[in-house]
Amino acid sequence: MKQSKIAIIGAGGLTGKELTSLLAHHPHFQLVHITSNQVDGKHIQEVFPELSHVPDLVFQKHDSPVPEDTHIVLATPNEVSLEKAPHYLNEGKKVIDLSGTFRLHDKTKFEKAYQFNHSKFDLMEKVEFGLPELFREKIKNANFVSNPGCYATSAILPIAILGNLRKNIQGPVIVDAKSGVSGAGGRTEEIKFAYTHVYENFRAYKILSHQHEPEIEEYAFVGSDPKEIHFTPHLLPVYRGILSTIYITFDKPIDSNQIQEKLQSVADKEPFLRLYKSPEDIELKKVQNTNFLDLGFKTKGNTLVLVSALDNLVKGAAGQALQNLNLMFGYPETLGLVNL
Amino acid sequence: MKQSKIAIIGAGGLTGKELTSLLAHHPHFQLVHITSNQVDGKHIQEVFPELSHVPDLVFQKHDSPVPEDTHIVLATPNEVSLEKAPHYLNEGKKVIDLSGTFRLHDKTKFEKAYQFNHSKFDLMEKVEFGLPELFREKIKNANFVSNPGCYATSAILPIAILGNLRKNIQGPVIVDAKSGVSGAGGRTEEIKFAYTHVYENFRAYKILSHQHEPEIEEYAFVGSDPKEIHFTPHLLPVYRGILSTIYITFDKPIDSNQIQEKLQSVADKEPFLRLYKSPEDIELKKVQNTNFLDLGFKTKGNTLVLVSALDNLVKGAAGQALQNLNLMFGYPETLGLVNL
Amino acid sequence: MKQSKIAIIGAGGLTGKELTSLLAHHPHFQLVHITSNQVDGKHIQEVFPELSHVPDLVFQKHDSPVPEDTHIVLATPNEVSLEKAPHYLNEGKKVIDLSGTFRLHDKTKFEKAYQFNHSKFDLMEKVEFGLPELFREKIKNANFVSNPGCYATSAILPIAILGNLRKNIQGPVIVDAKSGVSGAGGRTEEIKFAYTHVYENFRAYKILSHQHEPEIEEYAFVGSDPKEIHFTPHLLPVYRGILSTIYITFDKPIDSNQIQEKLQSVADKEPFLRLYKSPEDIELKKVQNTNFLDLGFKTKGNTLVLVSALDNLVKGAAGQALQNLNLMFGYPETLGLVNL
Amino acid sequence: MKQSKIAIIGAGGLTGKELTSLLAHHPHFQLVHITSNQVDGKHIQEVFPELSHVPDLVFQKHDSPVPEDTHIVLATPNEVSLEKAPHYLNEGKKVIDLSGTFRLHDKTKFEKAYQFNHSKFDLMEKVEFGLPELFREKIKNANFVSNPGCYATSAILPIAILGNLRKNIQGPVIVDAKSGVSGAGGRTEEIKFAYTHVYENFRAYKILSHQHEPEIEEYAFVGSDPKEIHFTPHLLPVYRGILSTIYITFDKPIDSNQIQEKLQSVADKEPFLRLYKSPEDIELKKVQNTNFLDLGFKTKGNTLVLVSALDNLVKGAAGQALQNLNLMFGYPETLGLVNL
Repeated sequence: MKQSKIAIIGAGGLTGKELTSLLAHHPHFQLVHITSNQVDGKHIQEVFPELSHVPDLVFQKHDSPVPEDTHIVLATPNEVSLEKAPHYLNEGKKVIDLSGTFRLHDKTKFEKAYQFNHSKFDLMEKVEFGLPELFREKIKNANFVSNPGCYATSAILPIAILGNLRKNIQGPVIVDAKSGVSGAGGRTEEIKFAYTHVYENFRAYKILSHQHEPEIEEYAFVGSDPKEIHFTPHLLPVYRGILSTIYITFDKPIDSNQIQEKLQSVADKEPFLRLYKSPEDIELKKVQNTNFLDLGFKTKGNTLVLVSALDNLVKGAAGQALQNLNLMFGYPETLGLVNL
Repeated sequence: MKQSKIAIIGAGGLTGKELTSLLAHHPHFQLVHITSNQVDGKHIQEVFPELSHVPDLVFQKHDSPVPEDTHIVLATPNEVSLEKAPHYLNEGKKVIDLSGTFRLHDKTKFEKAYQFNHSKFDLMEKVEFGLPELFREKIKNANFVSNPGCYATSAILPIAILGNLRKNIQGPVIVDAKSGVSGAGGRTEEIKFAYTHVYENFRAYKILSHQHEPEIEEYAFVGSDPKEIHFTPHLLPVYRGILSTIYITFDKPIDSNQIQEKLQSVADKEPFLRLYKSPEDIELKKVQNTNFLDLGFKTKGNTLVLVSALDNLVKGAAGQALQNLNLMFGYPETLGLVNL
Repeated sequence: MKQSKIAIIGAGGLTGKELTSLLAHHPHFQLVHITSNQVDGKHIQEVFPELSHVPDLVFQKHDSPVPEDTHIVLATPNEVSLEKAPHYLNEGKKVIDLSGTFRLHDKTKFEKAYQFNHSKFDLMEKVEFGLPELFREKIKNANFVSNPGCYATSAILPIAILGNLRKNIQGPVIVDAKSGVSGAGGRTEEIKFAYTHVYENFRAYKILSHQHEPEIEEYAFVGSDPKEIHFTPHLLPVYRGILSTIYITFDKPIDSNQIQEKLQSVADKEPFLRLYKSPEDIELKKVQNTNFLDLGFKTKGNTLVLVSALDNLVKGAAGQALQNLNLMFGYPETLGLVNL
Repeated sequence: MKQSKIAIIGAGGLTGKELTSLLAHHPHFQLVHITSNQVDGKHIQEVFPELSHVPDLVFQKHDSPVPEDTHIVLATPNEVSLEKAPHYLNEGKKVIDLSGTFRLHDKTKFEKAYQFNHSKFDLMEKVEFGLPELFREKIKNANFVSNPGCYATSAILPIAILGNLRKNIQGPVIVDAKSGVSGAGGRTEEIKFAYTHVYENFRAYKILSHQHEPEIEEYAFVGSDPKEIHFTPHLLPVYRGILSTIYITFDKPIDSNQIQEKLQSVADKEPFLRLYKSPEDIELKKVQNTNFLDLGFKTKGNTLVLVSALDNLVKGAAGQALQNLNLMFGYPETLGLVNL
């Protein structure tokens, strides 16, 4: 049954934990190696006592040797991914990277967004962007996949699937996104993620300067003319989930039926995209602990308002990574991702 | 000391409670009469056990006689305000109405937004809109004031104080607002405001169809060309506070200094407007239980992003009502509204 | 595969929803019939949009005919269970009742606790109490099982498994229990379960007068001398989970090792009982969405403090019901209850 | 007006912030000096932006000189209080210490509870325990007051005011206490106080080993026979407030009227003690941001259950400190503590 071996480098964080749990229930992937420079030497059960039925593994140092015939998930900080991805690719392993290191093809934009020098930019010719709804066939044949950002997924997918309707978009697209703390990028021991600072509170952060802004700009308009994205993330007093409200202005009044038909035609064939009749029925509760992206819209004059929601740790990270792994290894795309 | 007598009609709700508490600490207003058709006959202490040092009053029916020389705050549903406002005005009393009934001067827009026939529309010529930062002098001389909506206050004020910069605004202004449950308009016993439905959750509602949208459209552009507002409210798992993120596109690149100067010049003279250097420092915690509207901005190309925050029960309702009462009765505007 | 047919009478509540979800993933039970007098006529997906992969069923009225060869779970109010249980038993069906109607063998105590006259008390001779850790063999052979209360499970199990150590207990046993709203017995549209009344709040209720108090008294001391229970439930600002702190005074100083050995010997053979070295490591997070009861203890002088935690909707209701169904139908006890 | 000068040593924490806010509204105390070794050099407004109308002060190092004729509040860690208290007392200043350093008169118990050697134990003869309801007259004449712990206040007061009824108490008294994070003693940047670890969660900690246990034992039975206290604190997903459920067993059945009379006679003369007819009406919401201790009880057989609630930052810390300051300086005891 368990025929494909997986190692998670950087398994001690929230995404690593989520993926560990997903793999434990997958019929074909076997997690055989986990690393963390913070908790190396500890048993997985000790670090994640909430998980039941996880494999009998002990955290290793990042640099410890990976077992043979094992493929790699990098759930590491950007700088570590930069070093580790080429290393494992050279060893002939398949690699999925969950960091932001290999997402942007414009080096200037990358270095502005991530504030460090990208020394392996030649790899940008080899990597595929792991958004199955847009790049399914390429992912199937890829050895190296860069998993999208959680905010980015919530914005790219709704815009990109508008397809040729995008050519009439005028001016910047507004993405007003709201995330729970697990998607807001911070380590939980930071004071700004203390209960005291989060409960009964709400705030915007990195307004017009979040590193997912150029990622949305690159992929939301694939196959169409590029448009500017104005992206504002906010921190919700919630643990899991992202809801994005996207405002698109067209150069003429919108035909609501045309939008409906276009989105429905995509939703009909996508296993993890749910289209709602009323966007007011979308809520975080319905996507938490699922791999779905829920989508709805309203129109008024020239304006289209899209509402999307997803679980940042599942469709926004570990679930999407598993969806990509299924594609890369020739397993059914939804395996281990329904009935979570 | 206590020289001006006040009655609150509809004092049993959240706004009535907040105003009761504020008046109890005010040196000159004396609350002498409270009504509620739900809890009439009960002592105020019984209905609001959390309040200390409130006056020794028992709730009366709405129709019970108001003591002489007493002025009126209507914290009633729209239909009740429609009936009661002219009644008390005819008796020569000053009236502040906290409902939406007397805010819109366009009857068609009113009836579309509020879904009922407005039989007292002639009063729209006599009422002043109770946003002191915009209509201070008019309020001072008014007998009848319509207190603004909570969402509306959070959006009108930031836009309106842009003054003549508004003439270069192009296309619709996006107001993406997020409110705690006390500002989301619902009675708390509704199932959608149950803990179960609110905690760890987030959703949009009344997208492009909220009754505050035409209110923002009417007042945000006073003295300038009208623009369309696209307004989306969202429900936060929070009790108190509204944070609005406002996206304005101009017909040319914006000069950040010009915005700063304009907003600062207003903030310098407004007692309840705080301008932040960084809009990321604005958060609900800083405005809860205060009468402040906190404001900040960022620019990028042609786009201006404004972030505003206020307490929907104070600056968005009872606090603003007291600010208006101070003006109408000739007391210092900030009396009873600082050091809450 | 799906070989045993199940109907849930009263499937529209929280427990019905939880059990529907559990049965959907069980290899042998097929849910074929669901009733609700509130939402009859609606499709299950409409009522529980958060559930994926549920059977294609429409809610029927309670009185609608149950398909042949179908066994019954009653998730109904006490009065409905009182009427329905004998009805279905007479038809030869196996019945599990999740209400409190058939738990107490002392009619006086029952009628005091539940405040209604029990007209089918003869059934108390036929029913088994569905706590598998205590009555496993009886449940296997039962046609009629009364599922324990959620609070009761959290208190009975830790005390009962002390076995013969209970004979040295002196004086009343204190059970100080804290539950999330889903276990606090109320319908969520009640004002006391509104977000406004629950968030940032905490309170005790039904002090020394909760209906689970006599239930704990009856079953915690099975096979030993009866002792008085003093039970105080509290409402946590949490959705799911019960943590009970139990204070037991013995007639002499306690040997901590003896307690440890006794509890460990039970935990070693019980699939859903986890014994912790440190009771401070027990927390709601670790039991939410699992069928585990987590247990730990400390001693000081003559006093034993037990801490237990469980998910009130799983081990405290639907999960325990499925555990009982597995036993009654001869399936492995843990089927469908691990890796939730 | 402002006639008595106060310095807060260690003003950068939650208690320092609360006391700063209280003093700002007090007619006679003037805060003239604040210290913090973490944020020295910063202006008070920068550290506490939520506070309005605070004095124009900059944080100094702990060792910086205190202005003349200024009295001292120590809101410092135990070791700092140990060093600073005698220092300021020698200078002839009045001192209130909010740490646990000077609360226990049994050196062995102190060193076991606090895990450090107490080098100034001679001061224990000079210090008064700052619980005004028990030691009002002594506090009035004291130069050195040790402010009680927050948990301790919630337990000592309800037990102590039973007066001579305490002589019939048998066996250990159980104090099962539940606190929000601000009362649970931790610095908020600790991982265990991260939103992620607190929301939707609940746990016990320091079972039978909390440092407030000996404090309750010493003061709850003043003037009566000592009894053992068994104290278990728990962490609520709440910011402010402690609710304690106290179980007392008597050597005979209790007369509920006798308890009522005793408690009522105390409540009648105590400004900050509110006695409830039903203990189920007590809740954190009613005491948050007030200096009240709310109290209620139920009886059954030999057992008395007391429920008490207070705000750990007000009656449990800064409010009680101000109540003591009022007494020490001859001001009305409730000055600056009502209508918060």
